[in-house]
Amino acid sequence: MGSEIRLSDLAARVGARLAGDGDVVVNGIAPIETAGPGQVTFLSNPKYARFARASAASAIIAKDRVEGARAAFLLSDNPYFTFACVVELFHPPVRRSAGISPAASIHPGARMGKEVAVAPFVVVEEGAVVGDRTVLSAGVVVGEGAVVGEDCLLYPHVVLYHGVRVGSRVILHAGCVIGSDGFGFAPSPEGFRKIPQVGTVEIGDDVEIGANTTIDRAALGVTRIGRGTKLDNLVQVGHNVTIGEHTAIAGQTGIAGSCKIGSRVMIGGQAGLAGHLEVDDGILLGAKCGVAETLRASEARVWSGIPAMPHPTWLRMAMLLPKLPELFRRVKRLEDANIPKGEE
Amino acid sequence: MGSEIRLSDLAARVGARLAGDGDVVVNGIAPIETAGPGQVTFLSNPKYARFARASAASAIIAKDRVEGARAAFLLSDNPYFTFACVVELFHPPVRRSAGISPAASIHPGARMGKEVAVAPFVVVEEGAVVGDRTVLSAGVVVGEGAVVGEDCLLYPHVVLYHGVRVGSRVILHAGCVIGSDGFGFAPSPEGFRKIPQVGTVEIGDDVEIGANTTIDRAALGVTRIGRGTKLDNLVQVGHNVTIGEHTAIAGQTGIAGSCKIGSRVMIGGQAGLAGHLEVDDGILLGAKCGVAETLRASEARVWSGIPAMPHPTWLRMAMLLPKLPELFRRVKRLEDANIPKGEE
Amino acid sequence: MGSEIRLSDLAARVGARLAGDGDVVVNGIAPIETAGPGQVTFLSNPKYARFARASAASAIIAKDRVEGARAAFLLSDNPYFTFACVVELFHPPVRRSAGISPAASIHPGARMGKEVAVAPFVVVEEGAVVGDRTVLSAGVVVGEGAVVGEDCLLYPHVVLYHGVRVGSRVILHAGCVIGSDGFGFAPSPEGFRKIPQVGTVEIGDDVEIGANTTIDRAALGVTRIGRGTKLDNLVQVGHNVTIGEHTAIAGQTGIAGSCKIGSRVMIGGQAGLAGHLEVDDGILLGAKCGVAETLRASEARVWSGIPAMPHPTWLRMAMLLPKLPELFRRVKRLEDANIPKGEE
Repeated sequence: MGSEIRLSDLAARVGARLAGDGDVVVNGIAPIETAGPGQVTFLSNPKYARFARASAASAIIAKDRVEGARAAFLLSDNPYFTFACVVELFHPPVRRSAGISPAASIHPGARMGKEVAVAPFVVVEEGAVVGDRTVLSAGVVVGEGAVVGEDCLLYPHVVLYHGVRVGSRVILHAGCVIGSDGFGFAPSPEGFRKIPQVGTVEIGDDVEIGANTTIDRAALGVTRIGRGTKLDNLVQVGHNVTIGEHTAIAGQTGIAGSCKIGSRVMIGGQAGLAGHLEVDDGILLGAKCGVAETLRASEARVWSGIPAMPHPTWLRMAMLLPKLPELFRRVKRLEDANIPKGEE
Repeated sequence: MGSEIRLSDLAARVGARLAGDGDVVVNGIAPIETAGPGQVTFLSNPKYARFARASAASAIIAKDRVEGARAAFLLSDNPYFTFACVVELFHPPVRRSAGISPAASIHPGARMGKEVAVAPFVVVEEGAVVGDRTVLSAGVVVGEGAVVGEDCLLYPHVVLYHGVRVGSRVILHAGCVIGSDGFGFAPSPEGFRKIPQVGTVEIGDDVEIGANTTIDRAALGVTRIGRGTKLDNLVQVGHNVTIGEHTAIAGQTGIAGSCKIGSRVMIGGQAGLAGHLEVDDGILLGAKCGVAETLRASEARVWSGIPAMPHPTWLRMAMLLPKLPELFRRVKRLEDANIPKGEE
Repeated sequence: MGSEIRLSDLAARVGARLAGDGDVVVNGIAPIETAGPGQVTFLSNPKYARFARASAASAIIAKDRVEGARAAFLLSDNPYFTFACVVELFHPPVRRSAGISPAASIHPGARMGKEVAVAPFVVVEEGAVVGDRTVLSAGVVVGEGAVVGEDCLLYPHVVLYHGVRVGSRVILHAGCVIGSDGFGFAPSPEGFRKIPQVGTVEIGDDVEIGANTTIDRAALGVTRIGRGTKLDNLVQVGHNVTIGEHTAIAGQTGIAGSCKIGSRVMIGGQAGLAGHLEVDDGILLGAKCGVAETLRASEARVWSGIPAMPHPTWLRMAMLLPKLPELFRRVKRLEDANIPKGEE
């Protein structure tokens, strides 16, 4: 904020094509409803073109020019990506200054990297390893023998249970819990007997995990979150689940034990996946869908509904559901018309 | 507890109409199944009238008298409201005594109001502001530059990310997270690029937010929760969402990014709302419903189902769903009866 | 780990029938895909028999022998139970060494049992009681007057609100919140008036509660979780709910206020139960089901769907849902064929 840049320079910095006056100076980015002179904004969807036409912003990031807009355009085949670059340019990440708070509790048998930033009331237990430049915010707990890579950012109250392993450049939001016991109990006449959960969790590089999300350790073996995968808030990942690389999972989704989710999968919010099933690479799952069986990309790429079905089928079905009462009446009419005939 | 009051005085204090002996003395409130002599109880629903008739309580808060009950009645057009007043009278809120624990970590550049109560292991970061008489329970984190109003009650381990603003008389339950990053990533051939979330969250006066609920900061601009709105536990509010005033949202509901929810809306548990849609003032959403499009009060006031449809339609549909197998059989019979005819 | 035992001794210790060479020595347990010589593994489901045949493990826990497998078998009528015993034998629970961290904050008016283990930044408030040998991990908060039994294990950042009571041998996972206010508000023209939640929560012996799960205190009276019951992560239990004994509830399920859930009930993930209903002992609820009315075991033992219906009905219905568009077409054809006839 406060940094000024000419549009032509900005376009060059973020690799966008400029359409308009390159000498205009901009100094910030704002939402399309409120952006004013000197600000850049972002047209996420052509259906909001009227906002672009009404906007007093100096420049608009978009895929294509909007007729009738006064602003200059920063055009890009991947405007979301360009938007990300422009936001980062105006809001460079603020690094916590390195240093370990005297109010943190670091076990002498833990290994702390160079230039780590450790806030008050952090606990790092025996045998834990924290990589260089990693930030542990207030109240973070790194359990016995847990390993965190370099350049990670753990927000307040993140809990890593003993022995879990987290890669580098990982972001863990406040309150998320990595490595809690899987839900495993053997029923018996006297009640449940706990199956000790003696596996662990491994989280790849460049993963981001949302606030209050929970990821259970494996019963035996490893619960695995692949490189570059992003989980939203309040997601539940059961024991022994494997999630591939660059997969995105929206809020409140639940994945039961031993599922294998592929790479570049996208899952909408509040989706639920039953245990021991597979989802192929590249599949898209609609919000709130309920998956009870393995989903193959060869059968359909997009799935929705409870139980999950190919998306086009679901769309037709969803449109017809409210007409079900009418259908019952129509069938009744047909029966009334037919029965007398049958008896004639 | 222990405070005694005559029924006639109690009725006057809470603005109820007394039907029965005003000289009876009461000293507490208890559930209708267990309340005994000297206690007041509450008949929440006329269908529990048999409990009222069997009750040994001295007085019953209700909308109308119940024939055959021995207790006196405290009658009110809004018995829930009267119940709230009576409970508060017997259980006045306990104020934490003011004072800042020496085991808290308050940045010298933070501004603490008068008579605040700060428990051990609280962190208040640089530039944060905490209003008069506000209570920060154990482990609360008030991030850099965050602002909390007066007379707020933050339960243990609440996390306010940097820069969020909370009004006055706000109650935040344990573990809720305000201001975590919205779920915004630009896909690219190399994987996701994070869109920095540089907006904030504003929470109005008299809001209450449940345990482990998460509210994301805006990408740009503000995620906004209006005055008097109540959120239950484990709710997810995405980035750039706006929620109006005096709206109530039950547990585990998820609201995706950029939704605009009106005022005096009521949303049942586990509801899900897709991004970028609007819900008009005064609308009621049933539990577990899935909203994929803007809902207008002019079309229906109550909505249910996945996808959401007007509630009366949903009720009929839900009743018919279990009869779907039978309907398929009936259509098959009609076809069998018709085909030969068509061929005659 | 590292402990060696002969198969015949192992079989005797866990009460399994040995089929194979009892002199073989084993030293650990591993998943069926990776177990090698010297290791025991577990065949959870006969449909994975091919893994058993391919396995180089020394012994396999199973219900029946698998033809063609080289390993010895540890046979049991309850192989899950036997598996639990074998895992525990190789991975005996590690006890935290007793002692109270000088960085914990224990109120002088709290009562701490013998041999408790209290980590840094734990808060135990006035009048609280913590039983013998109980472990309070980093950041746990035991509120005013709350009672925790003996041999409990509270993981980091568990929050017990004031006055809640927890039995013995209870495991509470990280971030779970016990005793937050129920969601009770009286609407009025000026907005919501909070109904003070002055009841409490009681949790029986041998209960386990998952990470970031929330259990609300009763408005009046008690929210009750029976002995031996297990709750997974991110579950929401509303105020005044009663759950019986030895019931298991999977992740992200929500139970609205005043429900009465029986004993030995099993509830799948993301299920939702509306308020004030009952679920009989021994009932099974499918994942993602939506229960709006009392469920009686006399009507069906297994229920699924939204709204919940007997499971066999749901199975047939779920299979037919994707065929709904086709059914509409078939009815249209019948109508087209009939109408002219009717007019003839």
